Amino acid sequence: MHFRFPQKILFKHCDPAGIVFYPRYFEIINDAVEALFSDLIGWPFEDMHKGAGVPTATISVDFTAPSRHGDQIELGITIVKLGRSSMVLKTVAMAGDEIRFIADHVLVCINEQGRPRSWPDPVRAKINDIMEGSV
Amino acid sequence: MHFRFPQKILFKHCDPAGIVFYPRYFEIINDAVEALFSDLIGWPFEDMHKGAGVPTATISVDFTAPSRHGDQIELGITIVKLGRSSMVLKTVAMAGDEIRFIADHVLVCINEQGRPRSWPDPVRAKINDIMEGSV
Amino acid sequence: MHFRFPQKILFKHCDPAGIVFYPRYFEIINDAVEALFSDLIGWPFEDMHKGAGVPTATISVDFTAPSRHGDQIELGITIVKLGRSSMVLKTVAMAGDEIRFIADHVLVCINEQGRPRSWPDPVRAKINDIMEGSV
Amino acid sequence: MHFRFPQKILFKHCDPAGIVFYPRYFEIINDAVEALFSDLIGWPFEDMHKGAGVPTATISVDFTAPSRHGDQIELGITIVKLGRSSMVLKTVAMAGDEIRFIADHVLVCINEQGRPRSWPDPVRAKINDIMEGSV
Repeated sequence: MHFRFPQKILFKHCDPAGIVFYPRYFEIINDAVEALFSDLIGWPFEDMHKGAGVPTATISVDFTAPSRHGDQIELGITIVKLGRSSMVLKTVAMAGDEIRFIADHVLVCINEQGRPRSWPDPVRAKINDIMEGSV
Repeated sequence: MHFRFPQKILFKHCDPAGIVFYPRYFEIINDAVEALFSDLIGWPFEDMHKGAGVPTATISVDFTAPSRHGDQIELGITIVKLGRSSMVLKTVAMAGDEIRFIADHVLVCINEQGRPRSWPDPVRAKINDIMEGSV
Repeated sequence: MHFRFPQKILFKHCDPAGIVFYPRYFEIINDAVEALFSDLIGWPFEDMHKGAGVPTATISVDFTAPSRHGDQIELGITIVKLGRSSMVLKTVAMAGDEIRFIADHVLVCINEQGRPRSWPDPVRAKINDIMEGSV
Repeated sequence: MHFRFPQKILFKHCDPAGIVFYPRYFEIINDAVEALFSDLIGWPFEDMHKGAGVPTATISVDFTAPSRHGDQIELGITIVKLGRSSMVLKTVAMAGDEIRFIADHVLVCINEQGRPRSWPDPVRAKINDIMEGSV
């Protein structure tokens, strides 16, 4: 695992059944990916978005157990694979020893025209270092 | 296809890149499923939630083209399979002839304790009628 | 009243207490204002946003009764006053005969640099017609 | 001021104009109030919601300057007044020396039936201590 993102389940995340409204999980995943880029990779979204972006191309999530208001969960993100312009991530969300969801997602680095582009060299180098465990 | 859900892309759906912020798509999918149950199946969420629920167990989405503010899209939902307590759906979102995303999702009918339960008989009968094209 | 915006209270709007999570009301108000501009004033946000915008400068809301999942509410918007670059609105949300909230808000027409600008002449003319009841 | 709540402006908060979509500010305000109750007052929402709640009765916000993606803002909450069942708050959001918004809001402590109730004695005592500066 390359990055940990803790998240308390807040009032805003929960639905009338008292559990997380699942679209909110995707906001949490997005926050975690944003933190991955700013805190670990060193390419914050607010800088990146002047000419590039990393939209989600595909995402597949298995919700294995519900989360309730007040639960403390932690998303663990693993960078599984780095392509020319893509990045494959696996995110496992745990509350203690219980898995709450597992997400497999693919991001694509795009240019201002929305076309796939190569990762910038320093970003690629940094991600490779992270994947090799040297960061 | 068993149900159509039109949706204009609104200001609230869009991000600084001017395209739909993808967690918002899951709210749209949720709205479409809520409308499917109230308008086609005849078991509205607001009634169901007194003792049952149909949370999403898994969802897998392929975002094939971005949507922009003002676009008119339409989600077409097909009920692919009905299990004892599960329902497999496929949702294809189109803007004219262009596919914007394809979602494969599985819902599970649960009881108040959050355990899987059989679909109520009248609901099962109605869904079978829909799948057979007799509704 | 110049514009009516019906809204069913959906699952996504509600919190663990089973009533509308109040930040969701501001999304609904925003949707209603977006519809006011596209459907009544004839200046849709998706066109406007190429060089102008109408952000909310102030908003004051009195939540007089809670709304529950499945409730059908209707927002009635009155254009109270039109300034050089501002617009004062009053929105009353009803469910049948019961008031759910009353919002007083002020929008400001801005240019690409985020500075207040005069309403475009045709837009000003149209809004004046609406306020005089000739539309 | 009794409580500080820092918040980085994230991608999810921003609209196509690149500034905070104002309904998102109300989620941030709600998060700040939730943190005020859990971290300062010692009555977390997730415990409170088994028989009580503190919904927002009125809120009035003046948006004085826009916030952009990546901005670091801080909400400063002052407990202005404590009534039998109400609490008057003033929240000022700053980015450095610039005020981004000022919110005046009133919360009401309610019981399970949604009727106003007195603040629990230990909670009232704690809030009084906070207001007197002895915490």
